[in-house]
Amino acid sequence: MSYIDGKWFREENEMWAGYGQALEIEEVLYEGKSQYQQILVFKSKMFGNVLALDGVIQCTEKDECVYQEMIVHLPLNCHPNPKKVLVIGGGDGGVVREVVKHDSVESVVLCEIDEKVVEVSKKFLPHMAEGFDSPKLTLFIGDGIEFMKKHKHEFDVIITDSSDPIGPAEGLFQRPYYINMKEALSDNGIVCCQGENLWLDLPLIEQILTFAKEVFPKIGYAYSSMPTYIGGQIGYILCSKDENMKFQEPVRCLTEADVELQKLQYYNTDVHRASFVLPQFARKVLEPVIETERKDT
Amino acid sequence: MSYIDGKWFREENEMWAGYGQALEIEEVLYEGKSQYQQILVFKSKMFGNVLALDGVIQCTEKDECVYQEMIVHLPLNCHPNPKKVLVIGGGDGGVVREVVKHDSVESVVLCEIDEKVVEVSKKFLPHMAEGFDSPKLTLFIGDGIEFMKKHKHEFDVIITDSSDPIGPAEGLFQRPYYINMKEALSDNGIVCCQGENLWLDLPLIEQILTFAKEVFPKIGYAYSSMPTYIGGQIGYILCSKDENMKFQEPVRCLTEADVELQKLQYYNTDVHRASFVLPQFARKVLEPVIETERKDT
Repeated sequence: MSYIDGKWFREENEMWAGYGQALEIEEVLYEGKSQYQQILVFKSKMFGNVLALDGVIQCTEKDECVYQEMIVHLPLNCHPNPKKVLVIGGGDGGVVREVVKHDSVESVVLCEIDEKVVEVSKKFLPHMAEGFDSPKLTLFIGDGIEFMKKHKHEFDVIITDSSDPIGPAEGLFQRPYYINMKEALSDNGIVCCQGENLWLDLPLIEQILTFAKEVFPKIGYAYSSMPTYIGGQIGYILCSKDENMKFQEPVRCLTEADVELQKLQYYNTDVHRASFVLPQFARKVLEPVIETERKDT
Repeated sequence: MSYIDGKWFREENEMWAGYGQALEIEEVLYEGKSQYQQILVFKSKMFGNVLALDGVIQCTEKDECVYQEMIVHLPLNCHPNPKKVLVIGGGDGGVVREVVKHDSVESVVLCEIDEKVVEVSKKFLPHMAEGFDSPKLTLFIGDGIEFMKKHKHEFDVIITDSSDPIGPAEGLFQRPYYINMKEALSDNGIVCCQGENLWLDLPLIEQILTFAKEVFPKIGYAYSSMPTYIGGQIGYILCSKDENMKFQEPVRCLTEADVELQKLQYYNTDVHRASFVLPQFARKVLEPVIETERKDT
């Protein structure tokens, strides 16, 4: 199936039937099929180079900073001393690029199931793939779930940088996966997972948070504004083994100088705090599940 | 020009060339041309009834709550006692619906240049157009700028619910309009204007805030996540004649009971505060202009 219609890439998907976005193509850079999925890379008119898997945008050069920074710095700035980090998915390298900005991190393992994603990212998304240059990185091509089963009580932070729940990432949105993550975490470890969209996926988010709360003593939900993810928003599911965790209040607050030094485009400490403030329609549904220590207004 | 392509409404516009969104049409309810613009109303598969002017989505039944609630309750909850309110644009009635939720409001004038927008909204967007039923409302069909010139020092809050700067709303994004608004405001009056998208329009936003700061002693910029506005986000430009105004800290904080009573879907007091926290790329550009009293982190 082609997602290209003349000069436009059209993202119209059964997961959000009746809704779509489109990016104008300047040049198709790569089109192929791996063992797992269809892979497309194109240069867009407005958002730089774009990676799409099975017709769904995974990242664009212009706004990838939002997702990569948030899914990494939310959990890492909540952990007192993150040394060992595991990334499931994230074969474009962007998440690893952000992880290694933390001086405390000694090692990061990236588990990507699809080697072809790594290959095309290195070629066409060099700014994201610079994560692969870090000496702290071990790249493991294979199934993240199987990897975790062999590495118990080992990681301080696990980041699940997954695509949507239809396709190869389906298992990453299910209860057994959350149990696997918990078992692979060290004491007081934290996980942060791609958390979909409040407008389009609220029942799914509620369902995930409900079983996450059965597995972990503390959970949280944050979100950010991101133009090229359908619905213009992407969320983050956070879980901690530390029952005293307060996700909204990071243990490491960044000065403006830190933000400059880390070359952050989206994240800062105020953004961290604000990202947990849910719109009323979502608060009503999710807060009873999360039971945050929100101050009454 | 038609924006309908088979079963899809496609919003592809010169203002955001190379980027587009699409909503699947279940039924076209109205298509016509007024003196000012092309008007389309359709029933969409995912977002309820949709109003588009010159091919640009103005509101959908599913997510209109975001914009209407924010553009109204941000300024009204910052004003100590808003009695007289002026709305420029907003012919769909949604803004007035929110304004009259404030008990302090004694009168609201709606200046809409295009009578046809009011007519089709009453017919096809009844939940928004319920604002027209309020006994506090005076409807004025005509040019808002001319109206303001004849009403000096009169309104506590002015809300500019405009379309984008190409078309009939062009003048509402220019310096003289901000002077007109200031002159039509009572002492310590506040304005709140549709403020475009941080990702797509940052230079325009910087330009508007720069002249707004020359006109008003205090300005602010807030934003919200909104799926069906291109880029998934819409901002709000706030200006006050009160030099001690702190937009981020409303003078009226809502309890959960207040939020229920006012039937708010998006806005609550925590959302109000969080909406002023800018992503780093925007903070760097806009904060020097705004000079907010942000707490250092």
